[in-house]
Amino acid sequence: MLEPRIIEKLKQIIGADNTATERQDLLCYGYDATQMEFLPDVVVHPANADEVSQVLKLANAEKIPVFPRGAGSGFSGGALPKGGGIVLVTTRMNRIIRIDTDNLVAEVEPGVVTEQFQEAVEKLGLFYPPDPASLKFSTLGGNVAECAGGPRAVKYGVTKDFVMGLELVLPTGEIIRTGGETVKGVVGYDLTKLVCGSEGTLGVITRIIFKLLPYPDAKKTMLAVFDSIDGAATAVSTIIKGKIIPTTLEFMDHATIQCVDRRFNLGLPAEGRALLIIEVDGDRDLIEKQAGQIHDLIKPLGLVQFRVARDAAESEQLWKVRRLVSPSLRDVNPTKYNEDIVVPRSKVPDVIRRIEKIQQRYDIPIVNFGHAGDGNIHVNVMIDKEIPGMEEKAHEAIKEIFQAALDLGGTMSGEHGVGLSKAPYIPLELSPVQIATMKAIKGALDPNNILNPGKMFPE
Amino acid sequence: MLEPRIIEKLKQIIGADNTATERQDLLCYGYDATQMEFLPDVVVHPANADEVSQVLKLANAEKIPVFPRGAGSGFSGGALPKGGGIVLVTTRMNRIIRIDTDNLVAEVEPGVVTEQFQEAVEKLGLFYPPDPASLKFSTLGGNVAECAGGPRAVKYGVTKDFVMGLELVLPTGEIIRTGGETVKGVVGYDLTKLVCGSEGTLGVITRIIFKLLPYPDAKKTMLAVFDSIDGAATAVSTIIKGKIIPTTLEFMDHATIQCVDRRFNLGLPAEGRALLIIEVDGDRDLIEKQAGQIHDLIKPLGLVQFRVARDAAESEQLWKVRRLVSPSLRDVNPTKYNEDIVVPRSKVPDVIRRIEKIQQRYDIPIVNFGHAGDGNIHVNVMIDKEIPGMEEKAHEAIKEIFQAALDLGGTMSGEHGVGLSKAPYIPLELSPVQIATMKAIKGALDPNNILNPGKMFPE
Ligand SMILES: Cc1cc2nc3c(=O)[nH]c(=O)nc-3n(C[C@H](O)[C@H](O)[C@H](O)COP(=O)(O)OP(=O)(O)OC[C@H]3O[C@@H](n4cnc5c(N)ncnc54)[C@H](O)[C@@H]3O)c2cc1C
Ligand SMILES: Cc1cc2nc3c(=O)[nH]c(=O)nc-3n(C[C@H](O)[C@H](O)[C@H](O)COP(=O)(O)OP(=O)(O)OC[C@H]3O[C@@H](n4cnc5c(N)ncnc54)[C@H](O)[C@@H]3O)c2cc1C
Repeated sequence: MLEPRIIEKLKQIIGADNTATERQDLLCYGYDATQMEFLPDVVVHPANADEVSQVLKLANAEKIPVFPRGAGSGFSGGALPKGGGIVLVTTRMNRIIRIDTDNLVAEVEPGVVTEQFQEAVEKLGLFYPPDPASLKFSTLGGNVAECAGGPRAVKYGVTKDFVMGLELVLPTGEIIRTGGETVKGVVGYDLTKLVCGSEGTLGVITRIIFKLLPYPDAKKTMLAVFDSIDGAATAVSTIIKGKIIPTTLEFMDHATIQCVDRRFNLGLPAEGRALLIIEVDGDRDLIEKQAGQIHDLIKPLGLVQFRVARDAAESEQLWKVRRLVSPSLRDVNPTKYNEDIVVPRSKVPDVIRRIEKIQQRYDIPIVNFGHAGDGNIHVNVMIDKEIPGMEEKAHEAIKEIFQAALDLGGTMSGEHGVGLSKAPYIPLELSPVQIATMKAIKGALDPNNILNPGKMFPE
Repeated sequence: MLEPRIIEKLKQIIGADNTATERQDLLCYGYDATQMEFLPDVVVHPANADEVSQVLKLANAEKIPVFPRGAGSGFSGGALPKGGGIVLVTTRMNRIIRIDTDNLVAEVEPGVVTEQFQEAVEKLGLFYPPDPASLKFSTLGGNVAECAGGPRAVKYGVTKDFVMGLELVLPTGEIIRTGGETVKGVVGYDLTKLVCGSEGTLGVITRIIFKLLPYPDAKKTMLAVFDSIDGAATAVSTIIKGKIIPTTLEFMDHATIQCVDRRFNLGLPAEGRALLIIEVDGDRDLIEKQAGQIHDLIKPLGLVQFRVARDAAESEQLWKVRRLVSPSLRDVNPTKYNEDIVVPRSKVPDVIRRIEKIQQRYDIPIVNFGHAGDGNIHVNVMIDKEIPGMEEKAHEAIKEIFQAALDLGGTMSGEHGVGLSKAPYIPLELSPVQIATMKAIKGALDPNNILNPGKMFPE
């Protein structure tokens, strides 16, 4: 509980209307896409960097933790106010400041919803590729803080690859600019990329300068079903070695295919053990040719079905297969733990085989799909909390899955971040010196450990 | 002067053969591509991270500065041992450890010469795009430390965009790994990108994991001469807005064209005020089509000559125009100060016009060329040190050029770094809080300020 005089001060800074302490309001800002929930003491909705700065200065003076929050769609508890304190919501800072069609640059406030930004730039013939599946509600500030990815990362990269500069309120309340509007720049350290993916622990992002691209001419969607995981995985590297970098290379394993087909009857071939949704974009003639080349390249790899969408409607049909995954998973078990390990592309079959063994040993259904082009696999451990002991077993299994990814030269997370939920596992991946180095940087910027304490690193 | 016992200890760590204290040896490691020179006390050539670690631990215990050095081709004095100390040369660590053709990843030691690495991957059908003009002698470690660019950055990005992971000896002598071999990964802070471009102030790079691409199918070179700078600059954004991202968009201003043509008689049209060398790469049919599209797009912009190379030999002829720039500059004046400002692409004409005014005011010849696709202009202030007062005037002019770039939303350096030579100008670009933040990070990693002290930030 915060003293009333602190709430008063916050109201003076932010305005009473934008400072909430009622229990029903606090409840709305205590959860995210994880299963966890923590109640903050107060929720503030600042309008600009200056207000954010004042909140952080007060928080330092009074030693109160501050938790930045966008839409709360994070998958790792990064925005959750564990231990209580101030939740600082960015959704009022939701202006697209400008879109510069000459330099292919845009400047936005952090509370802009991802999809709204995409639509705004597309109207001008431009393209902002990062496409997390949460784009209908996630904020750009949250995307930057998590370094969000998405299917198009194969060709275009992740959020970080599009961030040129930031306005940042440091944990101490000082306001700085990082980076800029030029595509190159080597003056000083790259604070911009350091903040991308730092999960709100190094500063509150109040402005973002994004790089944009021209919107691609056309795209072409293909669906390829293979009789083995190895076939699908080899297809991925064969296509890329064939000098084609598809926009997306989405993967579904056998369990996922079964799930979707059982529920929605999409007519996927029974002998299919793995499936790829492949999309290419760019010049209209080129992608037509590439679709043919892709077919030739992957035909020898145990291909049992290959469909090419002839138009947007057919493309939509193929993507439906992918989009129906989430709704159909519930048939397996009511609760899913969604992890997002990454391995070098060629290790995808190995990691899937290891996960199959883990699944057998623990007797818990596990469903794998994701971004095969990046080696980024969403591993969904499906549990029923009503079954005694299943939750604990699932956590053991997840630890083994992380270890499998690490043994194969991978990482525990490609997009979803560490937050609260993976912090305890961090020592599996990072050495004590690595952790100490990162904590030293955090300490240099946040001497009172005010901003998002307890996140990212084990306490 | 270091005490003999310290030299003894260094010899024990590195071997006497790889520890030099003779004046003629020290002279070889006291200069770089700037005009500056400083003598180190000792030069060591470690063989691996462990030896580097021991040197740094000794340096911390004895409070001796250490200056990492690759080939010494830097343009900003980053490797120079100002104040004396240990120069740590990486050229013995020159193995290409492995090239993984399945995952398009390579692991190298820092002393590998850029071009040798490029050739090694190209033999396997792969592509490492960063192409600083120094590639025949610069090391990959130096490229990473400076975040080197090059003509191909327009399409492919700079060195940083290809660095996936590092082995790093921290200033304290501890060895860590950063990043990894997966194209995605969000566990912990992105130390990899923080170290890229940090100019040897945050650690000694002892291993680099690079991302590779498939080697492009074909390329096509064009030369376009315009009757105005505005025409050339508009051409750059018109091409990109026309959905074509060329590999290179190299620019030469009128003074540069005159220089080259006077000396080498290349038959460039007299009315040419600016020139672009445009290269596209990729699918053979596509680039053929793109060459036609580019011509159509830029024809209305005051195009006075357009040549398309039909084969490799003709392409070589067109590139010759660019390559002859450096040798012909000497005709103007014997000494050049080579700066590399960046502005948003659309501001290139503005900055050139401002530079023309500065040149008139100071009466010093200035020749501009560079990477127009990135807005990265090499501004060459040509002086004759024999002429009294010219050197001082040049420094004043350079300061005004930096200010012009900054006023237009740009930066003082796109590729060459800050090092010693630009450190005094840093407060023009970075605010006191920005500098303090960067210094806090440096302090967190290098508490004794051992590694490359006096670089990057003003003392
Ligand atoms: C259905 C669903 C699908 C998803 N699909 C994907 C996907 O395909 N790819 C992917 O990468 N992720 C995906 N995610 C997770 C993803 O991380 C988030 O959706 C998104 O990036 C977070 O945005 P948010 O605004 O909700 O941030 P929040 O959840 O509110 O916050 C996330 C983190 O960012 C910090 N933060 C937020 N705003 C700021 C700011 N302005 N300054 C500093 N720190 C800030 C918070 O403190 C927290 O640590 C998905 C999530 C859901 C629920
Ligand atoms: C003719 C010429 C053309 C050039 N063209 C370009 C160009 O087109 N684009 C461009 O970007 N640059 C260019 N440069 C400058 C460029 O910065 C360097 O050529 C190159 O990147 C430096 O490599 P190096 O091995 O010579 O490094 P050095 O000059 O030895 O060192 C440069 C910096 O890196 C640090 N460093 C070196 N190795 C390590 C290591 N292993 N760990 C930590 N720190 C290290 C040093 O301390 C120093 O601060 C050019 C230079 C010349 C002389």
